[in-house]
Amino acid sequence: MKAIEWLGGRVRFIDQTKLPGEETYIETADYRVIGEAIVSLRIRGAPLIGISAAYGLALGALGSRAVGPDDLRSDIRRISTELGRTRPTAVNLFRALRRIEDAAATPDSAGRIRAAVVAEAVAFHLEDEAMCRRIGENGARLVPDGAIILTHCNTGALATGGAGTAQSIITTAHRDGKSVRVYATETRPALQGARLTTWELMREGIDVTLITDGTAASVMNRLHIDLVVVGADRIAANGDTANKIGTYSLALAARHHGIPFYVAAPTTTIDPAVASGDLIPIEERSPGEVVEGFGKRIAPEGVRVYAPAFDVTPAALITAIITEGEVTYPPYNFVNVPSIQEQRNR
Amino acid sequence: MKAIEWLGGRVRFIDQTKLPGEETYIETADYRVIGEAIVSLRIRGAPLIGISAAYGLALGALGSRAVGPDDLRSDIRRISTELGRTRPTAVNLFRALRRIEDAAATPDSAGRIRAAVVAEAVAFHLEDEAMCRRIGENGARLVPDGAIILTHCNTGALATGGAGTAQSIITTAHRDGKSVRVYATETRPALQGARLTTWELMREGIDVTLITDGTAASVMNRLHIDLVVVGADRIAANGDTANKIGTYSLALAARHHGIPFYVAAPTTTIDPAVASGDLIPIEERSPGEVVEGFGKRIAPEGVRVYAPAFDVTPAALITAIITEGEVTYPPYNFVNVPSIQEQRNR
Repeated sequence: MKAIEWLGGRVRFIDQTKLPGEETYIETADYRVIGEAIVSLRIRGAPLIGISAAYGLALGALGSRAVGPDDLRSDIRRISTELGRTRPTAVNLFRALRRIEDAAATPDSAGRIRAAVVAEAVAFHLEDEAMCRRIGENGARLVPDGAIILTHCNTGALATGGAGTAQSIITTAHRDGKSVRVYATETRPALQGARLTTWELMREGIDVTLITDGTAASVMNRLHIDLVVVGADRIAANGDTANKIGTYSLALAARHHGIPFYVAAPTTTIDPAVASGDLIPIEERSPGEVVEGFGKRIAPEGVRVYAPAFDVTPAALITAIITEGEVTYPPYNFVNVPSIQEQRNR
Repeated sequence: MKAIEWLGGRVRFIDQTKLPGEETYIETADYRVIGEAIVSLRIRGAPLIGISAAYGLALGALGSRAVGPDDLRSDIRRISTELGRTRPTAVNLFRALRRIEDAAATPDSAGRIRAAVVAEAVAFHLEDEAMCRRIGENGARLVPDGAIILTHCNTGALATGGAGTAQSIITTAHRDGKSVRVYATETRPALQGARLTTWELMREGIDVTLITDGTAASVMNRLHIDLVVVGADRIAANGDTANKIGTYSLALAARHHGIPFYVAAPTTTIDPAVASGDLIPIEERSPGEVVEGFGKRIAPEGVRVYAPAFDVTPAALITAIITEGEVTYPPYNFVNVPSIQEQRNR
């Protein structure tokens, strides 16, 4: 199963809102379809959003009617801005768009620009795949044989261009022959844990138990958890980490129970221009995801809803941050990763 | 709106599984309908379960064909055992059944027994109503004007024989003229917060915002919460409190943010025979409530689910316990309340 594929001028992706009931694929040559899919969560997961945006921008370049290179670059910038508006929190999105724009900067004909942006998008995807593998290898060393692991949301093949981030650690440990058991939180409101993580882990033959988000602290207390590992949507320079809503609550509970709490993400998730977590923009989602997410309305008409998609876990609660490069322990001081702002101003 | 009413030989109750979409009432003279309603959560909330069980046992006594007093007492004991098996955690259930059995102990004819158990069940209901009022008054003193309050699950009129426990505190503060705002957690898996608490508070004209369970810690951190108040299903002698799953997680987050965390419950919720929380039996619910509770299956077929209905919040995380009698601060040492075991052995 591949969450997204480049089919030479077209993109094919799985509609994640239909899982686990239906395995439906969408094929398109229209960047707007990619943009809509990101907004509507057909495509989600910070790394996969980045790859999809890169492919979307490549589709935009191929579909543009521009003849001259400057006109095409102008179209690419416009489409990049449009795709950049789909989700505000995942930094991978902006990095990916910036990389494709950069690849378009120097070629001296529209044809060469189109070739360059397609090559760059494919390369970006392949790099992500390799990053997932290395995150898995780096993180699996921290997983003892027999480990009982708690994870949140979905960070597997459906969230990335490869085997995942946090989930890559779990599947790598499993493929290395370690016995692992997983508690997956359902992850309200969009239920990525219930719908996607259980589906992926069951396909891998990994022992997984689904719990509601509010059950996690009780599992830590009355049963047993050896470690928590989650992904990230943006990591500030000081290590504060924006991730799916509910992560902060798990980090507080893990700290209280003395359980290691790991964040796994590619380096592209780190944004050194953001000094600390309170500066990370947090997307608010539609109330509909909370009140009508289960196919039936679950709250009174007109009820006020507060539905942030992410929360911020302070660095002090994070045992280590696992990237494709290394395992970093506190104090975190991410200054060597070029920031999005720096990339933009370059 | 009354969650349950005694209509002289029949009981009328609202089917809470249909709310907020439909306001459906069920009227019955059959105690088995009451038992089924408790199991299926048509009737829920520890105090309301107790009242319903009392009425159920009264219906059982009225419906019994026994002619002699001893035969009727034997039927009552059998029906009490049957009703006692519906939910294992809420102590109010066992207390209520015991009271009705006690009322049946001395009358010297079947007719007098029937009259006594009906009178006792109605008295039990009226007492609960008065307890709710006093809990509200005792707790409202702790609510500052302008308070932003977080609550979990449903502890209102739908959970009790009166105005509620934790929610009675909120509505009493509101009726006293204080400005209050409420964040209500949706409370997975059965969504009593989304379905019932918002519905009740909106009817009272109280400003309520619905959040997913995993959003609560983030609200405490990024927005503001003045106090958390929740109900209880059983309170151990040392103050450890079993309440709806997710409560423990909220208590941990409240402690981390220095927010007062109050438990509100009638004294009948305290069980001194249980020394500490780890001895409270925790009911596990059907996986179906997690994976297909709301019209649409949200997880793969065959997925393993762990679905405890309750968790235990240690006394050390509870700022105060508010009953109809008083506000008790730690260290808790509830020894003056007759235990269920003592009542049984009496």
